[in-house]
Amino acid sequence: MKRKLRMGMVGGGNDAFIGAVHRIAAFMDGKIELVCGSFSVNPEISLQSARDLFVPENRVYGSYQEMIEKEAQLPEGERMDFVTIVTPNFLHFEPAKMAMEHGFDVVVEKPMTVSLEEAQELQATVEKTGRTLCLTHTYSGYPMVKQAKAMVKEGHFGKIRKIVVEYPQGWLSRLSEREGNAGAAWRADPKRSGKSLVMGDIGTHAAHLAEYVTGLKIQEVCADLTTFVEGRLLDDDGSVLLHFENNAKGVLMASQISAGEENAVRIRVYGEKGGLEWANEDPNNLIIKMLDQPRQYYRTGNAYAAPFTLSSFATHNTRIPAGHPEGLLESFANIYRNFALTVSAKMEGRTASPEEQDFPNVYDGVRGMAFIETVVKSNESNEKWTKFVI
Amino acid sequence: MKRKLRMGMVGGGNDAFIGAVHRIAAFMDGKIELVCGSFSVNPEISLQSARDLFVPENRVYGSYQEMIEKEAQLPEGERMDFVTIVTPNFLHFEPAKMAMEHGFDVVVEKPMTVSLEEAQELQATVEKTGRTLCLTHTYSGYPMVKQAKAMVKEGHFGKIRKIVVEYPQGWLSRLSEREGNAGAAWRADPKRSGKSLVMGDIGTHAAHLAEYVTGLKIQEVCADLTTFVEGRLLDDDGSVLLHFENNAKGVLMASQISAGEENAVRIRVYGEKGGLEWANEDPNNLIIKMLDQPRQYYRTGNAYAAPFTLSSFATHNTRIPAGHPEGLLESFANIYRNFALTVSAKMEGRTASPEEQDFPNVYDGVRGMAFIETVVKSNESNEKWTKFVI
Amino acid sequence: MKRKLRMGMVGGGNDAFIGAVHRIAAFMDGKIELVCGSFSVNPEISLQSARDLFVPENRVYGSYQEMIEKEAQLPEGERMDFVTIVTPNFLHFEPAKMAMEHGFDVVVEKPMTVSLEEAQELQATVEKTGRTLCLTHTYSGYPMVKQAKAMVKEGHFGKIRKIVVEYPQGWLSRLSEREGNAGAAWRADPKRSGKSLVMGDIGTHAAHLAEYVTGLKIQEVCADLTTFVEGRLLDDDGSVLLHFENNAKGVLMASQISAGEENAVRIRVYGEKGGLEWANEDPNNLIIKMLDQPRQYYRTGNAYAAPFTLSSFATHNTRIPAGHPEGLLESFANIYRNFALTVSAKMEGRTASPEEQDFPNVYDGVRGMAFIETVVKSNESNEKWTKFVI
Amino acid sequence: MKRKLRMGMVGGGNDAFIGAVHRIAAFMDGKIELVCGSFSVNPEISLQSARDLFVPENRVYGSYQEMIEKEAQLPEGERMDFVTIVTPNFLHFEPAKMAMEHGFDVVVEKPMTVSLEEAQELQATVEKTGRTLCLTHTYSGYPMVKQAKAMVKEGHFGKIRKIVVEYPQGWLSRLSEREGNAGAAWRADPKRSGKSLVMGDIGTHAAHLAEYVTGLKIQEVCADLTTFVEGRLLDDDGSVLLHFENNAKGVLMASQISAGEENAVRIRVYGEKGGLEWANEDPNNLIIKMLDQPRQYYRTGNAYAAPFTLSSFATHNTRIPAGHPEGLLESFANIYRNFALTVSAKMEGRTASPEEQDFPNVYDGVRGMAFIETVVKSNESNEKWTKFVI
Repeated sequence: MKRKLRMGMVGGGNDAFIGAVHRIAAFMDGKIELVCGSFSVNPEISLQSARDLFVPENRVYGSYQEMIEKEAQLPEGERMDFVTIVTPNFLHFEPAKMAMEHGFDVVVEKPMTVSLEEAQELQATVEKTGRTLCLTHTYSGYPMVKQAKAMVKEGHFGKIRKIVVEYPQGWLSRLSEREGNAGAAWRADPKRSGKSLVMGDIGTHAAHLAEYVTGLKIQEVCADLTTFVEGRLLDDDGSVLLHFENNAKGVLMASQISAGEENAVRIRVYGEKGGLEWANEDPNNLIIKMLDQPRQYYRTGNAYAAPFTLSSFATHNTRIPAGHPEGLLESFANIYRNFALTVSAKMEGRTASPEEQDFPNVYDGVRGMAFIETVVKSNESNEKWTKFVI
Repeated sequence: MKRKLRMGMVGGGNDAFIGAVHRIAAFMDGKIELVCGSFSVNPEISLQSARDLFVPENRVYGSYQEMIEKEAQLPEGERMDFVTIVTPNFLHFEPAKMAMEHGFDVVVEKPMTVSLEEAQELQATVEKTGRTLCLTHTYSGYPMVKQAKAMVKEGHFGKIRKIVVEYPQGWLSRLSEREGNAGAAWRADPKRSGKSLVMGDIGTHAAHLAEYVTGLKIQEVCADLTTFVEGRLLDDDGSVLLHFENNAKGVLMASQISAGEENAVRIRVYGEKGGLEWANEDPNNLIIKMLDQPRQYYRTGNAYAAPFTLSSFATHNTRIPAGHPEGLLESFANIYRNFALTVSAKMEGRTASPEEQDFPNVYDGVRGMAFIETVVKSNESNEKWTKFVI
Repeated sequence: MKRKLRMGMVGGGNDAFIGAVHRIAAFMDGKIELVCGSFSVNPEISLQSARDLFVPENRVYGSYQEMIEKEAQLPEGERMDFVTIVTPNFLHFEPAKMAMEHGFDVVVEKPMTVSLEEAQELQATVEKTGRTLCLTHTYSGYPMVKQAKAMVKEGHFGKIRKIVVEYPQGWLSRLSEREGNAGAAWRADPKRSGKSLVMGDIGTHAAHLAEYVTGLKIQEVCADLTTFVEGRLLDDDGSVLLHFENNAKGVLMASQISAGEENAVRIRVYGEKGGLEWANEDPNNLIIKMLDQPRQYYRTGNAYAAPFTLSSFATHNTRIPAGHPEGLLESFANIYRNFALTVSAKMEGRTASPEEQDFPNVYDGVRGMAFIETVVKSNESNEKWTKFVI
Repeated sequence: MKRKLRMGMVGGGNDAFIGAVHRIAAFMDGKIELVCGSFSVNPEISLQSARDLFVPENRVYGSYQEMIEKEAQLPEGERMDFVTIVTPNFLHFEPAKMAMEHGFDVVVEKPMTVSLEEAQELQATVEKTGRTLCLTHTYSGYPMVKQAKAMVKEGHFGKIRKIVVEYPQGWLSRLSEREGNAGAAWRADPKRSGKSLVMGDIGTHAAHLAEYVTGLKIQEVCADLTTFVEGRLLDDDGSVLLHFENNAKGVLMASQISAGEENAVRIRVYGEKGGLEWANEDPNNLIIKMLDQPRQYYRTGNAYAAPFTLSSFATHNTRIPAGHPEGLLESFANIYRNFALTVSAKMEGRTASPEEQDFPNVYDGVRGMAFIETVVKSNESNEKWTKFVI
């Protein structure tokens, strides 16, 4: 990279949680700087956020439209390079589309939109404009998740038979959306969140993780969605039977009423010759369970000798020596770093390496929205199996 | 107890695995002695087994029928008190029924029979004869499983919402039934095993555990059974969505092709106020996850002070001080010990305590067979939900 | 074995804890029966214990002397074969010596005696009488401890450099010996316990485990013993630097005031090529950490393929398939079973296999007493290093 | 903070490992920018590093002296605010002293210097100049370490009795300093590293952690240092018995030949009422073991209700919600962030909060050097106990 990439933010003011996570992820590697933003619909919060973030006041904008338009008019050496969109779900589509149409690349929170239709329109926009859209499916940035994917791909486990992926949380065990929790309030509001709370907020992470690690696409589902908390307008728990291509089968569980759970993402994959297990709560261990062998714990950052050598996809996404735990923020930063390396390569007329290009993109976003819609459709059906909608 | 109980065995010769486990469990507490047996259909194996087990040769019988008839004619101070049946599934029903009709109590391996009809007939026999039938659902004997049940019952977690129970194994990842594995051979043979391999062999353990811990009964299921290993005659993997009474929901996964897994039984239960987790691989920890509190690890054998005092059901089933791990054999032995205490109490005209009576019985066996039949029926249906058959 | 071995007990009445553990361990495998005892100095307790244990009243004795003398006069087909001694430490020596001199084999709790001198006299008695003395260093019975020993012996880790062994407990964090805890009372009483509480009760376990796993003998020590609880007459915590033969070094920590710990025995061994870790709280995992390789978890009961095949010493001491946890009672039972197999082989004029002979014996007992005396001597010295006293 | 702090670096070029870690830690929170550096004694590496780090070429300096002198002459709005020193140990003292004397604050890697004398001179310089010196004892930045300290301080465990702290690594199991490992080469070189390899590189981390968490100072030690790898010029393993003030005792183990270990820092502290355990490999769990209570796992980022509320020192140092693991880089960044907040407060005439001031400083550096010298002195002595040298 010849210079730092310049980031503008839509959303992410002081009153938001996820904006701060994006900034940490963006800043960590010293390759991205924040130059402008429309941080909040509340102008005072937006301005105060800018001050706290050392963004000059003349580059705080009253709306994303204003930001995109004005930044587009700035000289090339000054204007932002890309937009990070961290607003509630219903406010992803328009700024993402507009930004790309004005020549900016985009990082957007998941789920990419609130409907499959919007998602497909973003895909068309990417294909038309040639811009890069990065979707922050956080868990796919972990080195040991990438190691898992690499080992599946190279046939370490033989043909894949069974996939169990789960994302239990407990933070919506109460009616928090009525108790002053702003994050709960918009997530539980169908107008701002979309058709499913649990699948939009966390189920798509699980579905993406399953497809990312195994390289297998979901083909049909059988879903059971529930609203456990009285007064809630959307589902807060879902269990889904999965049929993948190539005759693999699976189960996906996403829950926000699993009281006492934090963010216990976990995936297990079983093939003919062995299985793997990875969990967000212990992310630097990849447990490999081969038939007839002791269990192996592959751990982040080790310079194992052959035949145990870690994949280049794992090592490319590791910062520090083994035994020093890297966490979610580093996983998140891997997504930003790869996005930045890919965008810089494009700017410089180079082709990014496969490792650099390995971050979730608009096609993952479309599948995520299709997953949500398929699950909701299945839940409403008495038929056992519902085909994936795309 | 005024004297040791006298056990006769049907099956469990030197060529069988589970018979040895039953004997360890029966002998451990010094309350049961082995006095006779029909250990194998092969007379030589049966005789050699008797010698290895220090059973007198005049009490080795050529068949269970002979054993039951001849023992019934022995004087009371000499004849066996109960029969343990550890033959393949299809050979449970007849000896169990005949034994009870001749005045003997029975311990029988799960699944109780090969059909719901047989199971219901055993229930009728119990009710008619007044004998005691004990079913060895092993995992319900663990102290921390009993502690979990006690905490659910006393309302520690509030209303139960979600139950996830799983039993993954990997030992049938290959076509072992054709490779000289006798245990695999009969289990994978519909004539000797029943309608479902995975549900009969391990799924019923999971279903029993879920109902035992929560006290909630399964009401309808949506099942997806698969035969992954080519050439196998029965299913080797199953995932089941569950609807319990009182609006609880759940997922049950049982698998014998989860390559690399051993016997990874695990249950998680979530209520309005908190959740619990227990796993067979780490059976002396009961993880309690309450909203707004640090996670707690209740551990076997501790004399915690109030309000953490372990349930009398947990302490009654614990032999040694905390930190000294008790394992599956102790869990199994708890079932035998409680059976023995209950039977002895009956003999002595006393009523056994609730803790002593806490072992799986004929009603659990009937539910287990109904579970298998319901799952198989659901699997064959295109309807999403299938009602529990009883 | 042609018949069950007949056990007599000294101590182990209803008011004692460890006697029950010995009986479970002895009975579990159906190879030993309890035929007589002098269970308590209190005749009523002794008699009631006999009844609860189904021991005939005519074989309950008022003292170990009476028991040994009278049993010696019984005909061979009736009299006990061996004596288990589970009295407080100061009452080990005399019954052990007397029993051997009357032709009985012996199982005795650790520490073997209360002085090195007594221990050496027992050694002389063993050598003179040819009897077998088994010392119950519990932790050496675990399959994964035996696997560790086998791997060290075969050079898997190269030359051993460093050994860290620890046994923290918290149960003596208060002055329990004055609060009605009988087990604490005699252990904390120098007259009944010996020169060191913490080293006698648990430090010798740790020292034995270190020497057992590595095959290396301690040569000199530097000890720091402390009595943390006011009013206590003996030490309750000790940390010891160790020099082993062959230039290995180590640390041994034993503590009974590590509040909140249960029985957290743990050993780590490091060689030139890799290390191992084993812990009593998770006894079915042996963690192998080789340079340049993922960590491996060897687990009890697996039929791993070469080159991972478990040692015959591990498999000989395993009862059930992988994934079904075996615990302390099985480890204890392994000691009894191997003792029984060895004694039976002697009776039958056979030589027991190396696996059967693998249980702690009188020489381990002598080293244990020497360890205690060396540590106490070092603690009293201002010199950094104190040579092992034998 | 009114603006980002401006950082200059001494060392940390592309050929170094720890420089990159410092930059990630410094950049993560968006409060610090890198403005200049003397990144390497090799001018080409230094220049290339600057380009990769987007540092303007006119602020790349040929030596730390040049950097400090020239930066001191720049106008206040432009010149660096502080210097980060990440050179080998023997090159800490001079740049740190010179920087402070020229009005710059300092961040310096541990150990602070190569001798106690130098350390004390830095202390005097701090006291004379009023500058702030921050020492990067990484592990003290973890939220759960801070929680541990807070709980000890508030008396949760009663009087502290026993402290076990350990830092095993395996990366120097071979003679890597002769095999092209630059980091090993200077660390194992007495001229560049100091009197002890293992104590300087990692033992001081362990000693600092023990004193930080407990608030107790080491008063005397008994040390056993070893050089296990043939050809090595300094020790690579050390075990130390510790006497703390207030009659607490402890053990410190630091090892770089614990083959297969990564960076397994761990501390256990036991008081009259309970104990705690924390480990770098699982840093978001603080295990609390109270007498008579289930174990509690306090986890980073939870909004527990009273009486479990996490300390303000823990929450101040947490960035993301519970269940999303934070790792070593966040711990490191906490040190930088608190340093930045404290320095900014000074600039702005405010007093930083206790939470902000909570980072290791020059006094910790002096104690670290005294610890090393005391341990080396003890190792050379035949006396059991050696008093702490200050």
